[in-house]
Amino acid sequence: MPARDKLSYEDFRPGRIGSFGPRPVTGAELIAFAAEFDPQPMHLDAQAARSSMLGEISGSGWHLCVMMQRMAHDGFLKDAHSLGSPGIDEVRWLAPLRPGDELTLDAAVIDCRPLRSRADTGLVTFRFEMFNRAGVRLLECVAPVMMRRRAPDADAKAETR
Amino acid sequence: MPARDKLSYEDFRPGRIGSFGPRPVTGAELIAFAAEFDPQPMHLDAQAARSSMLGEISGSGWHLCVMMQRMAHDGFLKDAHSLGSPGIDEVRWLAPLRPGDELTLDAAVIDCRPLRSRADTGLVTFRFEMFNRAGVRLLECVAPVMMRRRAPDADAKAETR
Repeated sequence: MPARDKLSYEDFRPGRIGSFGPRPVTGAELIAFAAEFDPQPMHLDAQAARSSMLGEISGSGWHLCVMMQRMAHDGFLKDAHSLGSPGIDEVRWLAPLRPGDELTLDAAVIDCRPLRSRADTGLVTFRFEMFNRAGVRLLECVAPVMMRRRAPDADAKAETR
Repeated sequence: MPARDKLSYEDFRPGRIGSFGPRPVTGAELIAFAAEFDPQPMHLDAQAARSSMLGEISGSGWHLCVMMQRMAHDGFLKDAHSLGSPGIDEVRWLAPLRPGDELTLDAAVIDCRPLRSRADTGLVTFRFEMFNRAGVRLLECVAPVMMRRRAPDADAKAETR
C-alpha cells in the first residue's frame, strides 16, 4: 500500500494483534539454515540425531527468530510504516523446533511511547510467541520497532479523547 | 575434536576471548537473506535505496545476528561442549550493515555460573560485538550458552585455588 496509507505509531495500542500462520517447516530447511549459520551437530546431523535419545534434529533457535520476523512481516508489519528497530530486548527458546513442525505466531503490543529524540517517531514494543501444531510454545521474544508518527501531537490528542 | 577434548564450562572465565574474522559481506547476500526472512524495502530494494538519502541498502539486523552466530561457531564455539542456549538476553543494532562490509567479531565472557537444576551443566554468558572495517560498532549482543561441566565440584575446587 502507499506509504501514506500505512499503519502509523498512533495505530498501535497495547493489546493483542492477532495470530498468524501456520508456517510449515521441513527438515531440509532446518538443515540448510543450520549449515549456513549455526552448524552445531544438534541442528545438522540427522544421522547422529537418529541414533541419539533426541531421535531427530532440532532447528537452530536463530532460524526460529528469522521465521518469526518473516511471519510478523507478512502478518502485519508489511502494512506498517516501520523505521527500523534498535534491537531485541529478549528472546527465550522454550522448546525444540522439529522437522515437520507447523508454526503459529501470536503478536501483541506491550508498550507504546514517543521518542524524545525524534518528534516524528514512536517506539512500539511487541511480544511475539511461536507455537507448534501441538500448541507447545517454542519461542517468546520482546522486540521494539520504531514507527512513524502521523503527527507529533497525535498522542496528546488521543490521550484527551 | 572428540567430545572429551572439547572446552567445558570450567574452561571459560570472565574476560576477553578474542577477535574473529574478517567476514566479507556482499550486497547479493544481504538481498538474498532479506528476501527470505526480512523483506522490508530498506533491506531489499537497491533501486529505491540508490535514489533515496540512504544511498544503498542496509542489511537486516537479523542477518547480522546469524552471521555473528556463525563467526562465533567458527571462532571458538565449535570447540566447546555446548548443550544449547536458553535464549538471547539482548541485541542492540547500533549502525547499518552495508554491502561490501567486512565484519569482525569480538567475544568476551561476562558471567559464569553453575545451573542449580542440572549438576552437569553451567551457564556461560557471552558479550559479542561486531564491527565493520572502519571500526564502527554495528551490533552488541549478550547471549548465554549452556556448557557441560567437567565435574560437578570443579567450581568449588577452582574457588579455593
